[in-house]
Amino acid sequence: MALIVQKYGGTSMGSTERIKNVAKRVAKWHDAGYQIVVVPSAMSGETNRILGLAKEICEHPDPRELDVIASTGEQVSVGLLAIALQAIGKQAVSYAGWQVAIKTDASHAKARIASIDDAKVQRDLDAGKIVIITGFQGVNEQGDITTLGRGGSDTSAVAVAAALKAQECMIFTDVDGVYTTDPRVVTEARRLRTVTFEEMLEMASLGSKVLQIRSVEFAGNYKMPTRVLSSLTDPLIPLEIEAKSGTLISFEEDTHMEQATITGIAFNRDEAKITVFGVPDRPGIAYQILGPVADANIEVDMIIQNQSVEGKTDFTFTVPRNEYTNAMEVLVKTGVQNHISATGIIGDAKVSKVSVVGVGMRSHVGIASQMFRTLSEEGINIQMISTSEIKISVLIDEKYMELAVRALHKTFGLENS
Amino acid sequence: MALIVQKYGGTSMGSTERIKNVAKRVAKWHDAGYQIVVVPSAMSGETNRILGLAKEICEHPDPRELDVIASTGEQVSVGLLAIALQAIGKQAVSYAGWQVAIKTDASHAKARIASIDDAKVQRDLDAGKIVIITGFQGVNEQGDITTLGRGGSDTSAVAVAAALKAQECMIFTDVDGVYTTDPRVVTEARRLRTVTFEEMLEMASLGSKVLQIRSVEFAGNYKMPTRVLSSLTDPLIPLEIEAKSGTLISFEEDTHMEQATITGIAFNRDEAKITVFGVPDRPGIAYQILGPVADANIEVDMIIQNQSVEGKTDFTFTVPRNEYTNAMEVLVKTGVQNHISATGIIGDAKVSKVSVVGVGMRSHVGIASQMFRTLSEEGINIQMISTSEIKISVLIDEKYMELAVRALHKTFGLENS
Repeated sequence: MALIVQKYGGTSMGSTERIKNVAKRVAKWHDAGYQIVVVPSAMSGETNRILGLAKEICEHPDPRELDVIASTGEQVSVGLLAIALQAIGKQAVSYAGWQVAIKTDASHAKARIASIDDAKVQRDLDAGKIVIITGFQGVNEQGDITTLGRGGSDTSAVAVAAALKAQECMIFTDVDGVYTTDPRVVTEARRLRTVTFEEMLEMASLGSKVLQIRSVEFAGNYKMPTRVLSSLTDPLIPLEIEAKSGTLISFEEDTHMEQATITGIAFNRDEAKITVFGVPDRPGIAYQILGPVADANIEVDMIIQNQSVEGKTDFTFTVPRNEYTNAMEVLVKTGVQNHISATGIIGDAKVSKVSVVGVGMRSHVGIASQMFRTLSEEGINIQMISTSEIKISVLIDEKYMELAVRALHKTFGLENS
Repeated sequence: MALIVQKYGGTSMGSTERIKNVAKRVAKWHDAGYQIVVVPSAMSGETNRILGLAKEICEHPDPRELDVIASTGEQVSVGLLAIALQAIGKQAVSYAGWQVAIKTDASHAKARIASIDDAKVQRDLDAGKIVIITGFQGVNEQGDITTLGRGGSDTSAVAVAAALKAQECMIFTDVDGVYTTDPRVVTEARRLRTVTFEEMLEMASLGSKVLQIRSVEFAGNYKMPTRVLSSLTDPLIPLEIEAKSGTLISFEEDTHMEQATITGIAFNRDEAKITVFGVPDRPGIAYQILGPVADANIEVDMIIQNQSVEGKTDFTFTVPRNEYTNAMEVLVKTGVQNHISATGIIGDAKVSKVSVVGVGMRSHVGIASQMFRTLSEEGINIQMISTSEIKISVLIDEKYMELAVRALHKTFGLENS
């Protein structure tokens, strides 16, 4: 019998009425003959509420104890969903992470899943039960409760699906799939029926916050077909329709290659850039600049260093905008400029990143020039460029971001491809 | 080093401010050189809130899943208390029931503790840590979460104290000890410095809701000295004073025997009595009447059947008042009256029980007659009498209850003994 893992987010689990709807949807799939494992998130707002209590007591609470507290939201969810399924005549049983041995490494608040004991779950499934497993949490080698970080339930669902060799992992959320770009910026944005794993990785890391990026990595490692689809439809929508809805992250690149060259336009509005200029071109400079920034736990995204002229070059990198002031302070405090005898440091907190993503890009030349020409025709200056095999990102003045996204969406024919 | 187990109730844990106060009190004991294990309840109202969600979904939810949900309140509490202790410089670590292997039987919502693995806890204590363990919950042989029923945290605390061979189990609550009777009824009521285990058992089962009765049984089985004391005092009250405050449940009966004959007057206002009259006096009658009542999960307290006259007798029993209508319906529906050819069934839902309790009663005659004379002098009719080795209970019209309690409290000199 085919096995499906379904994950439901906090909004879908947000009230007892919504939990009853989740139960109806799950029961529909079970009625159709599928074995079903469900991984629900905590009711929306719940985890924040209890973590808020911890912060009332102490500004920097012990991560181990925070995980003890934070993991309770999902435990309430699994129990409530089991009860909702039983209320409509289904056999259902819930498990916390430690009960099905979702083993993780030791790092609290951002643990990584190492293994899952699937025998217990398989036994229940074979007995006709629907199995409900807490997302977001596991247990480490010391027997301590760990959590996987925000959005970790996506990762749990994909990991469980991989361990149980599920046919598909369905991530039910409040959007109905992955789009060519954000429909709030480009009204013609179109839902993608499929994306490749690598494209999804780029889209997820570039600001399409549909799926947690680690869940995409997991899906990729285990080649687990993963579908993002809406939990806001009528729960009794015909199964044949629902099974093909949303966006499927696929691992059959060949079929996809025949399709459009460009899959979508991703963007991130809230970037900031920092340039250290007049930097002597010698080994160790990059580390001397970025070391203190990394030590302060600030995430660095794009990094550019150009060819030097007369032994001097400029070194530029971007950080999330809310870390901009922090990053500048770190550079000033640690005296980087003097250390490396740079001429100066300047920054700009009003920049945005726009990226063109597509697996097809690999075999098609001219994507970059088409992108740059489009931006140039719109009078948009490109401040930085960075590329990977399947994406090209540019940094531009934030005030042109929407214009750039719309123009690129049109240029690459995404509205009707 | 002497080990103390401290239990804090839901009111004491009711807000982050109160949790900080609990931490201060615990730290005071730790500073004085004691090893400390803390067993906190869920924040007051929290367990009711989440169980309310379950009832929104289904009127009679699966007990296994209810336990999954209900056990989360204590998990939040232990994490928050650990953080509060760390915030004032103490090493503290929290455990859920399953992590220190609080093994119970399989019955959900009213599980009984079978064993505790004390090695892990002892290791932490020896390392100078304060250990915090969830009350109210355990794990059964199947690895499912169980809960011990309302008030179960008292039982957890005593069980943990017994397993770790603690010097004393301190139950911090919102009253400052066990009184000769309810001070709201008799203003002269006096706090008892000590009660024997057996007296406490009678007081607890007779409506002095200071301690859960199973925790008293546990204390008795393991001869664990258990002290009931107030959590509402200043947390920094000198330790020498706090150590002698409240009421100690003791197991040294000899010293106590020299003291007063009567320890206290217990009462239960909310009783109801049911009489089946004209019952033929033959074997099996009691079972035929009470069987259906027990099957409906209605607790029966006093049971009286008098000597028969001409082959007929009357059979009377009491139930909690809120079960009265239910019990009468059960008797009518199951046609008990016809089955056993009784003459009729009558009930009275306005009766109360008053009990005189004291270990000293064993060796003193005349307690009963003194009790009955006092009630008679006050013009109070006795409807039923039942006795045990250390208590005499009478059922009376509820309107005389306060009068009876005050008169008995005076007769036995409890205000100044």
